Amino acid sequence: MSIRQSVALALAFVATAALLAACSGTPTKTAATEPEKKLRDEPIQPLVSLTGIDTAKVELGRKLYFDPRLSRSGFISCNSCHNLSMGGTDNLVSSIGHQWHQGPINAPTVLNSSMNLAQFWDGRAKDLVEQAGGPIANPGEMGFTHELAVDVLRSIPAYVAEFHAVFGTDTVTIDEVKQAIAAFEETLVTPDARFDRWLKGDDAAITDDEKAGYELFKGAGCTTCHYGTAVGGSSFQKMGVVAAYATRNPAVGRVGVTHDEADRMKFKVPTLRNVELTYPYFHDGAAATLDDAVATMGRIQLGREFTPEERGKVVAFLKTLTGQQPTFTLPILPPSTPETPRPQPFTR
Amino acid sequence: MSIRQSVALALAFVATAALLAACSGTPTKTAATEPEKKLRDEPIQPLVSLTGIDTAKVELGRKLYFDPRLSRSGFISCNSCHNLSMGGTDNLVSSIGHQWHQGPINAPTVLNSSMNLAQFWDGRAKDLVEQAGGPIANPGEMGFTHELAVDVLRSIPAYVAEFHAVFGTDTVTIDEVKQAIAAFEETLVTPDARFDRWLKGDDAAITDDEKAGYELFKGAGCTTCHYGTAVGGSSFQKMGVVAAYATRNPAVGRVGVTHDEADRMKFKVPTLRNVELTYPYFHDGAAATLDDAVATMGRIQLGREFTPEERGKVVAFLKTLTGQQPTFTLPILPPSTPETPRPQPFTR
Repeated sequence: MSIRQSVALALAFVATAALLAACSGTPTKTAATEPEKKLRDEPIQPLVSLTGIDTAKVELGRKLYFDPRLSRSGFISCNSCHNLSMGGTDNLVSSIGHQWHQGPINAPTVLNSSMNLAQFWDGRAKDLVEQAGGPIANPGEMGFTHELAVDVLRSIPAYVAEFHAVFGTDTVTIDEVKQAIAAFEETLVTPDARFDRWLKGDDAAITDDEKAGYELFKGAGCTTCHYGTAVGGSSFQKMGVVAAYATRNPAVGRVGVTHDEADRMKFKVPTLRNVELTYPYFHDGAAATLDDAVATMGRIQLGREFTPEERGKVVAFLKTLTGQQPTFTLPILPPSTPETPRPQPFTR
Repeated sequence: MSIRQSVALALAFVATAALLAACSGTPTKTAATEPEKKLRDEPIQPLVSLTGIDTAKVELGRKLYFDPRLSRSGFISCNSCHNLSMGGTDNLVSSIGHQWHQGPINAPTVLNSSMNLAQFWDGRAKDLVEQAGGPIANPGEMGFTHELAVDVLRSIPAYVAEFHAVFGTDTVTIDEVKQAIAAFEETLVTPDARFDRWLKGDDAAITDDEKAGYELFKGAGCTTCHYGTAVGGSSFQKMGVVAAYATRNPAVGRVGVTHDEADRMKFKVPTLRNVELTYPYFHDGAAATLDDAVATMGRIQLGREFTPEERGKVVAFLKTLTGQQPTFTLPILPPSTPETPRPQPFTR
């Protein structure tokens, strides 16, 4: 094959791949509208908006995300603990599950979660698809089984038709359920934070105090872990680098997955995008306010006692990371039928 | 004052009132677009659409309706039990309240509830404003107090500003909370059901079977109680007119309000609008399906044993009462502040 032929073939591949991507309805990221050269050289990069996200799979996933019939009680949906009216969290120290079970850990935000290197605080799920099945079958969360969840969906003709339209299959499977929910969750990005506008060259997008807070954040070493587009989510780090972290929460972190003692108390670094909305903070939800969280992080991760004034500036910076929240119409769910298994909220 | 002067004054009053209504942002009902003369002469009247409902008060009420911070746990909102993705109900036999308390009665739909002669199954609240405060302070529902709910809202500057914009006051009061929630609930009407289109003269809007079901519904006497725009909601009636209704539910009905023994087991006749979506049925949620409900109603209210074929037709008719569900953007709630009282989900 000549070089010219090879190049032509390669170009044909690229063109085909682009065409397939355009046709498959996969969310595609658009480049920032500003010229790339204007982007400031910082450890944090701006979030990019999604286009082409209103696919049938996303629509189906949105319904499933809001459908409490995926829980044994018929009362708890994904949105119960990852509430999209409240920063994609429940704003509780730890979540409420089936029959008011107290969850073992603080619910992380679903916003921008597709950018995490893995899912859950200990990273035990490799991606959102793998994550989505967890809470459904967790006895202390939605308290159901994958089999029963699928039985419910199969009994509802409107759901069966929607799964068929999306996946081209005639049965509903838990893998399809997880894929649809993950597809919806991938759309939950929060672009256009004031800090992003500043990163793209708009000097007036943040105040001098907020700018000073960012310089402090960077200078103190926070960006060692909280960097990149999601300002976190890119690594597992030990909670208590300089000083031990005192907690009554029994969570042991990444060691529970790797069984490597070096990973004890290592947790996924949370994203700081929308951190103003995702209180309380840390895996144990022990920090009620951003001021608390900044003070503790300084003490146990950096060996630094931030002054109240410094904390105020860092907090002011952190609030510039609040982006546009996902807006969409509340989904209307197809009704159950006489064949649908009944919710079991009170039986043990 | 001359007659002419009186008439002029009266007209001026009417014009002023109309102008005030137009300016106050109160939802106004528009007439059906078809000429009145085409409306069929039936005991059921079509629902009319609302216009002019996107007022600041409705917007505020929508936020409050979805805000779980009006509950002690921070987990339960109005929408938890009157879920607008699911026909304005929770589709449970009885609701789940604070710390998984089992509610005493089936949650009625919020859809078209402004048309009820009173609120709750026993009519103990005269309107939606009076109703809205009930669940917040009910220990087995949202488990909070009006004082604490107001404390939460007052600690959130964005809410304080919104209350100020709507009510012109500088404090947030529980009465304002109730008014805003009720204003939102008044918008939750479901026009354009297929049956309404038939009522307005569109012969093809319902099938022959559905039409036969309606004739049966009317002929058997169902419209004695289920009449009017809401197909119910207009009177209190005894559950068990012809034969006693066997139930393990301790609810006693209207007698609990009036203390008149004649009102024992009298309940507000529920609306049949969207009844396809509001399963299970009756104050005790004992009828899982419409077929069950029709059979029981025939037996205990009408002394009639409907055949399976008759029940099928009546059910087919009832499903023509499903109207356009309210569609709106999921509200984004303003975040709590360091001053906001923390949710107390697990303390007793």
